[in-house]
Amino acid sequence: MIARSFPARIALVSRIKGRGRSFFSPTQFPQLLLGAALLAAPAHADSLIDNVDGLTLTKSGKVERFTGMVVDKDGRVAKLLQRGDKRPDRGLDFRYDGKGRVLMPGLIDAHGHVMELGFKAMSLDLTAAKSLDEAKAMLAAYAKANPDRPWIVGAGWNQEQWGLGRFPTAADIDAIVPNKPVWLVRVDGHAGWANSVAMKAAGVSAATPSPSGGRIEKTATGQPAGVFVDAARQLIEKVVPAPQPRERDIALSKAQAILLGYGITGIADMGTSVEDWNVYRRAGDAGVLKVRIISYAMGLEPALAVAGAGPTPWLYDDRLRMVGIKLYADGALGSRGAWLKQPYADAPKESGLGFMDDAKIRNLMVRAAMDKFQVAVHAIGDRANAQVLSAIEEVAPSYRDDRRWRIEHAQIVDPADIARFGKFGIVASMQPTHQTSDRLMAEARLGPNRLAGAYAWESIRKTGAHLAFGSDTPVESPNPFPGMAAAISREDAQGQPFGGWQPQERVSREVALAGFTTEAAYAGQAEDRIGMLQPGLRADFVIVDTDPLESAPAQLRATKVLETWIGGQRAYVAK
Amino acid sequence: MIARSFPARIALVSRIKGRGRSFFSPTQFPQLLLGAALLAAPAHADSLIDNVDGLTLTKSGKVERFTGMVVDKDGRVAKLLQRGDKRPDRGLDFRYDGKGRVLMPGLIDAHGHVMELGFKAMSLDLTAAKSLDEAKAMLAAYAKANPDRPWIVGAGWNQEQWGLGRFPTAADIDAIVPNKPVWLVRVDGHAGWANSVAMKAAGVSAATPSPSGGRIEKTATGQPAGVFVDAARQLIEKVVPAPQPRERDIALSKAQAILLGYGITGIADMGTSVEDWNVYRRAGDAGVLKVRIISYAMGLEPALAVAGAGPTPWLYDDRLRMVGIKLYADGALGSRGAWLKQPYADAPKESGLGFMDDAKIRNLMVRAAMDKFQVAVHAIGDRANAQVLSAIEEVAPSYRDDRRWRIEHAQIVDPADIARFGKFGIVASMQPTHQTSDRLMAEARLGPNRLAGAYAWESIRKTGAHLAFGSDTPVESPNPFPGMAAAISREDAQGQPFGGWQPQERVSREVALAGFTTEAAYAGQAEDRIGMLQPGLRADFVIVDTDPLESAPAQLRATKVLETWIGGQRAYVAK
Repeated sequence: MIARSFPARIALVSRIKGRGRSFFSPTQFPQLLLGAALLAAPAHADSLIDNVDGLTLTKSGKVERFTGMVVDKDGRVAKLLQRGDKRPDRGLDFRYDGKGRVLMPGLIDAHGHVMELGFKAMSLDLTAAKSLDEAKAMLAAYAKANPDRPWIVGAGWNQEQWGLGRFPTAADIDAIVPNKPVWLVRVDGHAGWANSVAMKAAGVSAATPSPSGGRIEKTATGQPAGVFVDAARQLIEKVVPAPQPRERDIALSKAQAILLGYGITGIADMGTSVEDWNVYRRAGDAGVLKVRIISYAMGLEPALAVAGAGPTPWLYDDRLRMVGIKLYADGALGSRGAWLKQPYADAPKESGLGFMDDAKIRNLMVRAAMDKFQVAVHAIGDRANAQVLSAIEEVAPSYRDDRRWRIEHAQIVDPADIARFGKFGIVASMQPTHQTSDRLMAEARLGPNRLAGAYAWESIRKTGAHLAFGSDTPVESPNPFPGMAAAISREDAQGQPFGGWQPQERVSREVALAGFTTEAAYAGQAEDRIGMLQPGLRADFVIVDTDPLESAPAQLRATKVLETWIGGQRAYVAK
Repeated sequence: MIARSFPARIALVSRIKGRGRSFFSPTQFPQLLLGAALLAAPAHADSLIDNVDGLTLTKSGKVERFTGMVVDKDGRVAKLLQRGDKRPDRGLDFRYDGKGRVLMPGLIDAHGHVMELGFKAMSLDLTAAKSLDEAKAMLAAYAKANPDRPWIVGAGWNQEQWGLGRFPTAADIDAIVPNKPVWLVRVDGHAGWANSVAMKAAGVSAATPSPSGGRIEKTATGQPAGVFVDAARQLIEKVVPAPQPRERDIALSKAQAILLGYGITGIADMGTSVEDWNVYRRAGDAGVLKVRIISYAMGLEPALAVAGAGPTPWLYDDRLRMVGIKLYADGALGSRGAWLKQPYADAPKESGLGFMDDAKIRNLMVRAAMDKFQVAVHAIGDRANAQVLSAIEEVAPSYRDDRRWRIEHAQIVDPADIARFGKFGIVASMQPTHQTSDRLMAEARLGPNRLAGAYAWESIRKTGAHLAFGSDTPVESPNPFPGMAAAISREDAQGQPFGGWQPQERVSREVALAGFTTEAAYAGQAEDRIGMLQPGLRADFVIVDTDPLESAPAQLRATKVLETWIGGQRAYVAK
């Protein structure tokens, strides 16, 4: 199970960012730019949302139930109403009948990649292909649906699932798309599959040597066969055009549509480039930024370039803020890039790689903190988590005000280090669906005796750390309901393993909900405006078909979002 | 007279942009960030500006006089009042007594470089030094005033004025500043003067060869002497650190303070980088963007990156918009980079250089126009102007709506081409002070028989072209009053030549005023919101000590701005 590897994501990110030309045609999807705007209800003064089965967490962490809610003209909750409470009878501009359905706070994804979600939606997704023929059929359909696209770019193929006994070849694609370049990244990001036009565009021939750290698959006659492994990927990727600004705008529009459909009203964007930021601003300036984006710059440089000497203010009625920076302490487990204290169980000579030495990570954290940028550090392996914890312990005492040091993923933690999460207000930003997707792979990588601190949600929470939940979309689906279901059950969509994997790490329904609402808001320094339905906070809520606090994991996982409202405005209605 | 050469400006721009470290200390000038905000009067509802000697141009181009003005709560002019008109007696929140002083529309500079103005103000200016000793004294004073600055960077020296008979040396600086790097660019931008620490930082030694197209001045013993000519400049400049975001913010603050002091309430920023744009946005987000910036991106790339598929909306209550792109057809006259139809009179083998062939300039214009970006093309020489005119003639018919093709400078135009300005709504964006500063140089470059189309304001205006005026700051002072004085007199500050140089090209006082108000607004697609004091437009005005329509050139040149108001808020008061 290596689909979610760090290199795969980086391969995706590097493919779609930063270069000058475009693999998308500029004429695609113009209607999407206006989609979100058209869905929104007209602005109104005070509104009454009534006849709902409402629930929210409160500042004290308790569950509050209600049947009605007054929303003021600025889109903030004015009042929650109980069944017997008198409804306001004047000053109302809009009255909404919830017909008794469940209303809950808008979900906040504490860790996602907004633009990558949009780009993934725009490119060819082969993950569902169970055979080469299926992959070819999907390619043919995509090519037909996107005739103006100068390049076809996709990802997700896995020839191991195809019973093929070999890598696919350029000729396999040429049979479907002979006249424009095609580039398809393998599910793990470690290889790419090109057609002949793409290889020609890249100037790759029989004479091209495999680069150090990479391999060009060859045919019996010595010609490049079409698959480029590891460092050889770059031979093709360097000529895949970067998206144009218009396409970036479309990608954001697509990402927003997907997020709204899953009830996501806010998301921490974990690694915002200057280009990404410009897309968010364009949407904000045009009034089509709906989902609230809590932005963490992709390192210090874009943070300084965009935000200057400190986080930006909240912009566009609390829809956008660059609050901090994202750093990487290590890679991922699937590709054995996660940095472990002991060697990998399935690769005894490897223990992954730390991306920065202790001094460097500390210095970067200090540099960011000096200007009050929040710091979020990716740490998957136990060695990386220990490194980041040590860095926080060293740096935090110099910043006595509330800094909310974030550790992203905190996936494999040495049990001896777990208690360290409880100090300095550390936020553990974790992704419940990674546990259900990765558990077999984690067992293979770590062996049976080193799993006590793996995806250890409840143990970390009990230390007093803040536990925020996210999806890591597009690595996983951004749908938060499978995340909540995994959080309370540690069972996957098939109910496996029955009773849950390491079930002592299950969390309560309330903690799962908090992870995707109040704690995700806290993690993003936004708890004073979003995350719960309480007077003065933004009226971000969803109408769903399931009560998340009173349903079995399978029901919770299958929750359907019927409507999504942001700032008291309806932004999505299920068809 | 080569101080205003294009290479000099580019040298300045390239020195201060785009690299990773900083020559300014981050702790300088914190107070400046708040300066403009503190000066502003508190927000109020309707205001009455009364008892003024008011003047403005109107939509019909006439002069309107008034004695009072009602400003609404959004900072727009509600009504102009004549002497006998009844003043409103209710709904007023603020009443201002102008004490009979002259009130005129805020000035708009149709061509400037906002960030460069700020950076110039932050660096050492040696233009006033009349001897090496004076230069050393200025350096000593600057070093003392800026102790935290890791590099000292400056410009403006001219050893020809110093009676020195030699270039200055590194030792001359070492005697004043021995312990930190110093880099001082010559007045023409063609040479730089370093001290020993700077040369060491750059790794320059006796063994360093002069690069192609450049020369390292050497001592008698073969050591680098301190002066680096032309391409050799880069040896030092590559290690001069780029400003940090905080310093960029300070530079904008300084630029705004300077502009407000001269009554400039709006400026076309001719060549905005993505970094510049982020500075403007930070100021806008923080509420400290006062001067209205009409931004032309430095080429297509930043326009697409920032604005995407078309100009941005007006942001921050009409204080910022990226409306178009800036292109360069040629260089400048001083350095003989201006592209001429015939060879230079003082260099018969040279006729300058076109930066783009005809197809390329057309293609760029079409690409920009496709997305409704306005196009502003720098053209100094008659050959460059002819090229741009031809490109407009070829491209414009495809865009029948109002595109306002701009030619920046339009400095030397073949008389045979002047009539071509009258078609397609072309805007000639010209800088009157360039004429008074450059006339002797222009005479040398062109000879006596090719001056008929030089700085030909009135001839161009009479074709029906729009004539917008600017300063090209920081190449010239941004003070618009010497510009207006030059426009009506074609005499310099000493009244030379008496009666004006090529006096047939003088314009009327009304045309001069229009150039810096209504026509500058039109040139920036902003005439529906700024440029005149008329109901519905922004109340941007200045209180001055001279009536610009009733004063002699010398008086007009010496006009003192007493107060500057933007959007009905006072942003500057003279001390």
